[in-house]
Amino acid sequence: MATTVSPTPGELLARVREQRPLVHNITNLVVTNVTANALLAIGAAPVMAHAPEEVEIMAAAADALVLNIGTLTTPWVEAMLQAGRAANGAGTPVIVDPVGAGFTPFRTDTSARLLRELTVAAVRGNAGELRALAGAAGDVRGVDAAGSAASAAEARQIARGLGTTVALTGPVDQLSDGSSVVSIANGDALLARVTGTGCIATALGGAFLGVAADTPLAALTAALVSLEVAAEEAAREARGPGTFAAALLDALSKLDHASLDDRARVEMG
Amino acid sequence: MATTVSPTPGELLARVREQRPLVHNITNLVVTNVTANALLAIGAAPVMAHAPEEVEIMAAAADALVLNIGTLTTPWVEAMLQAGRAANGAGTPVIVDPVGAGFTPFRTDTSARLLRELTVAAVRGNAGELRALAGAAGDVRGVDAAGSAASAAEARQIARGLGTTVALTGPVDQLSDGSSVVSIANGDALLARVTGTGCIATALGGAFLGVAADTPLAALTAALVSLEVAAEEAAREARGPGTFAAALLDALSKLDHASLDDRARVEMG
Amino acid sequence: MATTVSPTPGELLARVREQRPLVHNITNLVVTNVTANALLAIGAAPVMAHAPEEVEIMAAAADALVLNIGTLTTPWVEAMLQAGRAANGAGTPVIVDPVGAGFTPFRTDTSARLLRELTVAAVRGNAGELRALAGAAGDVRGVDAAGSAASAAEARQIARGLGTTVALTGPVDQLSDGSSVVSIANGDALLARVTGTGCIATALGGAFLGVAADTPLAALTAALVSLEVAAEEAAREARGPGTFAAALLDALSKLDHASLDDRARVEMG
Repeated sequence: MATTVSPTPGELLARVREQRPLVHNITNLVVTNVTANALLAIGAAPVMAHAPEEVEIMAAAADALVLNIGTLTTPWVEAMLQAGRAANGAGTPVIVDPVGAGFTPFRTDTSARLLRELTVAAVRGNAGELRALAGAAGDVRGVDAAGSAASAAEARQIARGLGTTVALTGPVDQLSDGSSVVSIANGDALLARVTGTGCIATALGGAFLGVAADTPLAALTAALVSLEVAAEEAAREARGPGTFAAALLDALSKLDHASLDDRARVEMG
Repeated sequence: MATTVSPTPGELLARVREQRPLVHNITNLVVTNVTANALLAIGAAPVMAHAPEEVEIMAAAADALVLNIGTLTTPWVEAMLQAGRAANGAGTPVIVDPVGAGFTPFRTDTSARLLRELTVAAVRGNAGELRALAGAAGDVRGVDAAGSAASAAEARQIARGLGTTVALTGPVDQLSDGSSVVSIANGDALLARVTGTGCIATALGGAFLGVAADTPLAALTAALVSLEVAAEEAAREARGPGTFAAALLDALSKLDHASLDDRARVEMG
Repeated sequence: MATTVSPTPGELLARVREQRPLVHNITNLVVTNVTANALLAIGAAPVMAHAPEEVEIMAAAADALVLNIGTLTTPWVEAMLQAGRAANGAGTPVIVDPVGAGFTPFRTDTSARLLRELTVAAVRGNAGELRALAGAAGDVRGVDAAGSAASAAEARQIARGLGTTVALTGPVDQLSDGSSVVSIANGDALLARVTGTGCIATALGGAFLGVAADTPLAALTAALVSLEVAAEEAAREARGPGTFAAALLDALSKLDHASLDDRARVEMG
């Protein structure tokens, strides 16, 4: 097996399918459908809700809360904070996707505010977004620009600066909880040709945190390995980004937990 | 033919394709695209609009109004009520999808309010949602949890309690207008692996009510038979939930009204 | 080659892929995902943002701004105007999709207001929408009803009346900048069976304006030829509207700029 992360991706995938974690998403208008479908495909139960009248109940009842600022507005940010506080009170792990941090001050500031006002178990973004969030000079243009590749050392530094577990995704993902680092080399170039695959990664991170809140680095590793091994399978079926998106859901639903760890291209440092 | 519902699903499908009913949807952010596509595929004309400036015109001009609370907020609920009153005034039939009723008081109360303040031709939900709406103890967790299976007797009782025609969908659907009951055993397990298939069922219910407002039990039966026979076709093509979702739209557009009744696994009681 | 439009669709497609224009969309809730994916497939970089805190920065940084009123509300219209003014100030070309103009006064008036208060490089709609916007008696029912076919002369007249470049899309598209007219006969009937293909046309118009703001008629021609030649390819793979939607994205991503002009069925008048 290529990884010494514990529990392993395969072990956690089996747990997701057994426990069917309820994942509460306050996410962006572009990916509501695809993230719900990805969560169903992996074996989790998605719920989307952003009304102040109910987000606290949802977040407290859920096994994980996913906050994604891709099409943020002030009322949605308030709902995220309200849900986040309820999640924190109930012990529901929170994962943040700072979509476009570094591109506008509203996104950078909102991401920082979520991390400042909430206890956040994990953050998943591309290198440029995480750098912006960590206070470095951003190199973000639009929301799909990844910034230059990150190193394991940079991931560790950002995790320490933010005081949480981070995943900087790209052709090679760099993850860190501030002490250990994990790099993942699975995936396919088609992931970057379909909108929302980063958001799917974050949502799956929520599903795995929902069954492994005490090991966030292992949870994020399992989420990314699952998505990226599925992407490798989907790329074989796909004739382009449209058929890839459909095949990706097929592949997520068929992922075999018993063989997943053999497929994982994970290095731990 | 397996059903004595009149008009039959095949007769009503032919009518939908001939009349191309305009279906006004105020629905949730997860399913806007897939319900619009399902309506187009069955032969209806979808429109989505939720602004107070225009919902009354839309609802009055439409052949049916679909109200779905999947990602409700107070302004959207107000728009639903405003549209619903205009629909009622114009004789446009209204169908309600009480997504997540029983999971939060906001959802349960809003669903109840829609039924209290509007004349509603039909309600489609899973057993847990309908039980919550009827005042029974809910067994809903999340929005995809179906609750335990319903009986025909329970469907009749709920329809009487709510004073409308209801469809409790699941592996076997139970429908009732308070006197007659209909059960439908078509469908495929993949329907539960794709988000929004319940919402599609409700939207199609709107399309069929748009051509058969005077026979709501027949309209709901036709909607569910159409969706579920299409699902059986789609399941043959699908390699998982992603390709199933695409194949489902293909199958809806190819449904043959002449043979639909032969495929219907409908029992009337 | 069938067209004398200059630059040609093939030349502009090559430019889109080289320059990867950033396209800021304020669009409707039905098509967020599919338009983002279509923009990615053609080679552009989509961003969706509608918060007053950031739309000015986005619009000024973008290479094009797409304003689509498909599910408009007053706050969204205000955001469109705010973004549009910033785009005008920065020289970012603006394209408008007046979805449903002629169906409700709110849509007709809002479309007219966008054109009155902003400098708009282009408008894409069906014949009924453009007629309503130009002050003619509308023949719009719902948002997918196209109205009767337009002539080249009518397109020229509407372009002159609105003072912008227009594309009236349908089985044969009629485009005009008020002097020249272009007709395009590519495409497939399945385009009308999938929701949002008109919105995709507008979004692609944004991508091409982003690399050819000085030749809007050529940009719109390239956008429609690209989409419709891709549709012809996709129709060969499709078994219905669901598989067509996926195949359309595949085909957009595979479009060959070197052979595109040979496939274009374009006439200039």
